[in-house]
Amino acid sequence: MISFRSDYSQGAHPKVLEALLATNAEHTDGYGIDRHCERAADLVRDLIGVPDAHVHMTVGGTPCNVTFIAACLRPYESVIAARTGHAYFHETGAVEATGHRIVTVDGEDGKLTPALIDRAMEEYQDEHTPSPRLVYISQPTELGTVYSKAEMTALSEKCRKLGLILYVDGARLGAALTCRENDLPIRDLARLCDAFYIGGTKNGALFGEALVILRDELDDHFRWMIKRQCGLLAKGRLIGVQFEALLEGGENSLYYKIAARENVTAEILRSGLAGLGVKFYGNSPTNQVFPILPAPVVRELEKEFFFYEWAPERDGMIPVRLVAGWGTTAEEAEAFVSAVGQLI
Amino acid sequence: MISFRSDYSQGAHPKVLEALLATNAEHTDGYGIDRHCERAADLVRDLIGVPDAHVHMTVGGTPCNVTFIAACLRPYESVIAARTGHAYFHETGAVEATGHRIVTVDGEDGKLTPALIDRAMEEYQDEHTPSPRLVYISQPTELGTVYSKAEMTALSEKCRKLGLILYVDGARLGAALTCRENDLPIRDLARLCDAFYIGGTKNGALFGEALVILRDELDDHFRWMIKRQCGLLAKGRLIGVQFEALLEGGENSLYYKIAARENVTAEILRSGLAGLGVKFYGNSPTNQVFPILPAPVVRELEKEFFFYEWAPERDGMIPVRLVAGWGTTAEEAEAFVSAVGQLI
Amino acid sequence: MISFRSDYSQGAHPKVLEALLATNAEHTDGYGIDRHCERAADLVRDLIGVPDAHVHMTVGGTPCNVTFIAACLRPYESVIAARTGHAYFHETGAVEATGHRIVTVDGEDGKLTPALIDRAMEEYQDEHTPSPRLVYISQPTELGTVYSKAEMTALSEKCRKLGLILYVDGARLGAALTCRENDLPIRDLARLCDAFYIGGTKNGALFGEALVILRDELDDHFRWMIKRQCGLLAKGRLIGVQFEALLEGGENSLYYKIAARENVTAEILRSGLAGLGVKFYGNSPTNQVFPILPAPVVRELEKEFFFYEWAPERDGMIPVRLVAGWGTTAEEAEAFVSAVGQLI
Amino acid sequence: MISFRSDYSQGAHPKVLEALLATNAEHTDGYGIDRHCERAADLVRDLIGVPDAHVHMTVGGTPCNVTFIAACLRPYESVIAARTGHAYFHETGAVEATGHRIVTVDGEDGKLTPALIDRAMEEYQDEHTPSPRLVYISQPTELGTVYSKAEMTALSEKCRKLGLILYVDGARLGAALTCRENDLPIRDLARLCDAFYIGGTKNGALFGEALVILRDELDDHFRWMIKRQCGLLAKGRLIGVQFEALLEGGENSLYYKIAARENVTAEILRSGLAGLGVKFYGNSPTNQVFPILPAPVVRELEKEFFFYEWAPERDGMIPVRLVAGWGTTAEEAEAFVSAVGQLI
Repeated sequence: MISFRSDYSQGAHPKVLEALLATNAEHTDGYGIDRHCERAADLVRDLIGVPDAHVHMTVGGTPCNVTFIAACLRPYESVIAARTGHAYFHETGAVEATGHRIVTVDGEDGKLTPALIDRAMEEYQDEHTPSPRLVYISQPTELGTVYSKAEMTALSEKCRKLGLILYVDGARLGAALTCRENDLPIRDLARLCDAFYIGGTKNGALFGEALVILRDELDDHFRWMIKRQCGLLAKGRLIGVQFEALLEGGENSLYYKIAARENVTAEILRSGLAGLGVKFYGNSPTNQVFPILPAPVVRELEKEFFFYEWAPERDGMIPVRLVAGWGTTAEEAEAFVSAVGQLI
Repeated sequence: MISFRSDYSQGAHPKVLEALLATNAEHTDGYGIDRHCERAADLVRDLIGVPDAHVHMTVGGTPCNVTFIAACLRPYESVIAARTGHAYFHETGAVEATGHRIVTVDGEDGKLTPALIDRAMEEYQDEHTPSPRLVYISQPTELGTVYSKAEMTALSEKCRKLGLILYVDGARLGAALTCRENDLPIRDLARLCDAFYIGGTKNGALFGEALVILRDELDDHFRWMIKRQCGLLAKGRLIGVQFEALLEGGENSLYYKIAARENVTAEILRSGLAGLGVKFYGNSPTNQVFPILPAPVVRELEKEFFFYEWAPERDGMIPVRLVAGWGTTAEEAEAFVSAVGQLI
Repeated sequence: MISFRSDYSQGAHPKVLEALLATNAEHTDGYGIDRHCERAADLVRDLIGVPDAHVHMTVGGTPCNVTFIAACLRPYESVIAARTGHAYFHETGAVEATGHRIVTVDGEDGKLTPALIDRAMEEYQDEHTPSPRLVYISQPTELGTVYSKAEMTALSEKCRKLGLILYVDGARLGAALTCRENDLPIRDLARLCDAFYIGGTKNGALFGEALVILRDELDDHFRWMIKRQCGLLAKGRLIGVQFEALLEGGENSLYYKIAARENVTAEILRSGLAGLGVKFYGNSPTNQVFPILPAPVVRELEKEFFFYEWAPERDGMIPVRLVAGWGTTAEEAEAFVSAVGQLI
Repeated sequence: MISFRSDYSQGAHPKVLEALLATNAEHTDGYGIDRHCERAADLVRDLIGVPDAHVHMTVGGTPCNVTFIAACLRPYESVIAARTGHAYFHETGAVEATGHRIVTVDGEDGKLTPALIDRAMEEYQDEHTPSPRLVYISQPTELGTVYSKAEMTALSEKCRKLGLILYVDGARLGAALTCRENDLPIRDLARLCDAFYIGGTKNGALFGEALVILRDELDDHFRWMIKRQCGLLAKGRLIGVQFEALLEGGENSLYYKIAARENVTAEILRSGLAGLGVKFYGNSPTNQVFPILPAPVVRELEKEFFFYEWAPERDGMIPVRLVAGWGTTAEEAEAFVSAVGQLI
């Protein structure tokens, strides 16, 4: 059984594991105050070229999103997000659990635009409506698409004009940074948004995401917020150790290499299937591929491959999701293409 | 520098790490639905002798406490806890963040009693007061003391009579189960309370606590609650893998062995210091030792040893906390006793 | 200046005021435990023909909606509502403030349908999504339209089949019950939904809404919930006194008379304007009228009349809202029609 | 049956009712944006001598307390209050419902002191504890006692030094301002605290409390907060109208006269009972009197008088609470004293 189920279906990249082993016997203080977290934060600051950025090692994507949102917003404020956005669609109302509405807009290809933000703002003007304060997007989006530098710049300018915080969920940031279409390096991203995170879980770590806060006032008492939101790991250094292993070397780091390889493997799937005449759901250039396949083909493939059906069957066709993780091999991708070739 | 700072200052016990390494390349489904979590849950059920207990692998103690409390209580309900209890004292109001009051009572040696519960209940009778619904204790307590079987039975009977849920925080449960004074094996604990957790973080794991829910109605949609409270780990199997390694063998398992050793090491500290005439803060028989030392001695010790000052200096004396972790050695404990002997 | 601004722009109907005066010197217990609230609840139970209905006198519509929703839902559960629904659109996120998402659907004429509920349910199936539990509608809707008996029956059946609570916001319930198109008497409404409220504020009271809960389990500790949500009025009897005055006589009561008169006055506006060829925004048969008027006409009218512009100008036309309250007279309505006649 | 049950057991003072009648037919905008609320706010500003104070008309004490607290605090911040304080003791956890802990201290006579604040602060220093941010007191306290100018000045200085917000619940502020012992006029109170409210409900209004916010930054988007906390009354002007009637004339206003009379009536009870050798529970000089009476006397009195037993029977004696409201007469007070005289 070959798995394209997700990029978090295996453990950690071997070099990440090695780092955990090498530091295992050390005694350090708990809760993320230790030299490994310090060093990992320095690597992040070097990578993005912002020497005074605030960096926090967080346990996972949902706690990272929710803690940052809860920390920034006053009680009557709300979040603007695409209806397909992860924080809206796949986090069981964890944002609302902190008392804040997510105002949804219907973005094309999973993306927000300045026009969509304007429209959301129009509806929320007086004391009878919650006041939008933060724009949540992800790079890449939930559909694997990537904001261009022009698109991100436009969003950034709109947000700054309206006094909105621009927050970028980077669960799969590596896949965006290293895909062929990308023209938005991490330093530009850091310049254009107010906070973002560098996702570890889906890029070779056991777990952990490095949250980067780019405005001092948004960082106030942030460790209190992490603890209150249940996200302060006792052995916090584990996240630091992993990001040290991932980020050493900047754009030549393991982090970039893992992501680039995931994209290359995904490209084997994408171009191979396209060569067979397969159509795709959306337009992802990253490590997620969404072919639309005939239902009987899907049923047959499920005997040998493990993947998600992404949307319900329509007209006999099913969109499925294939994800390339750090351990997915070119051979596995080729095997899938070949299997489809035999079935179509 | 020798550390008695905490039982979470090192990584994982080598055998736990080995298990993580051995399973690293496997593909599994995410979020705790996998064969390792299944197997770990079975080991828990075997250990406690409750074949239909509900078991959830949770990331840490605070998320475990908060998720369970938030899941059980209706909005107007509250928690009764000792003012020294961890969920009140050291979790940054994470319980209140879910909308529930913790009603504090002043327990002796960190313990609750039926009489203290009665007193708390008296004050909360009508619709103008939040209604107590859950009693939070820990075994051992925050001060390292241990409830006897008689004490736990009395609490249990009181709670059942009053319709209160009895929840036991087991962050250091191993240390309680394996200390000399203990007369409350885990099967009795499971019989007497409604839910508890078996702490991994402070007993040799990288992280992770196994929550055990003993009443079906308290488990309803619990995975939804974990996700909403930001505690559902993507690579959830990591917790399962660790508890497999820890719990295989039941009362002869690595979990019990690590804990027993921690207690033995602590006993070296305790008896050694007592032999020097040192007095203790509270009456802990577990892996935490609280000697009260002259301030100048403390200052001197801090040059070579790493530990917490537990309470402010009074009359020239400072209570400090020494904790034995999975990696703390008898030699290290003896070195500390010897250093004190030379300084006193 | 003649006001069609709202049905809450004046004080109370004179007979309601009389009742407050007549009982002013009485001493009663506070917080809604008194003979007036008792009597008002009995009048409600008689009116709806449900002798064991639970009735609570609440301060206003928003506290009533929010308290009921917060009382019914477990933390991970959500509400389904039309995007135009009052609880979503005009209550500043007060529902989300209690930790629950409102999932919005785009209903025609402000209404929900079984098909829209089905679609919302499809998206929310596993532990990564909040679980819909309550359907919020209002009768009449925010756009003044009215659910027919057939429509309400279909919603009711859908909700019961799916285990959803059907809650009806009755801020202007009188206007629905007494409008010509209505075929859904209050007894049928009470039979088809799980809870609803009889709005006082917009139907002749100073303030106050009578919440009716039709399932015992949804009423559990409800007074605790009212207090916790800040809605327990010290002089709670004031609401009881007003509803005694409003509801004495059942379907011949002052409540029905006020509402019927509001509708008649609105009909003067509606038929008068229609006679002038004016088109309307939506299809309200109740005490709210939404004519679409040329912008210059609106500007001119605003010199003598007080009303809301309901939506932005488009193609030179502006939809406005005219509301007939308990004190709005036929002469005032005729004056408006006449003014439009002169301007068009 | 003569009632000393509470100062909210009758309706409104006749002059307040008159004002409601006189303005009943007026049309105004809703939600507290109208000339009556404006005028009432001006009267408050004149009375306290702070021309730029922010004044909000709120529905009741609990919504006022909770909205202000929720508006001021960041999520990880907490409130310091006496364990007897109303917001802790009698509001069903409404503050915690907004996610904030109330840290309780045991004050003498219901009062906080700088030393108690210091002690509370000591415990809350790092990211593992919620951070105190607001000190909640009431004037008079829940036990009827009154802070002197010296005491309030000391609290104020302590709070300013520590960066804490000092908030004064004035549910019975009139009774404090007009009692013989008082040396803290309202202008001094306004100078020493950061926010307080002038209670209407217990001082002759049907309902309503005028919240005064004395620092601009604490008022930011406050109307959004009122709505979100369900406290924005549709016919908001009703509160304005009542406070116009109450506050016209400043220190010679109806508000002061009602309060002074309540105190005088209470003094008849107090001195009369003291003359009979009765002892008191606490030391209230305001409109609440707490005599400690033999249980059989209490049982006998309860046949003719309506009042609360304040604490459980001890050694055959029961502390009861007698409250003088706006309508309580000297004759009623004398009748009670005389009845006790005959029974003792």
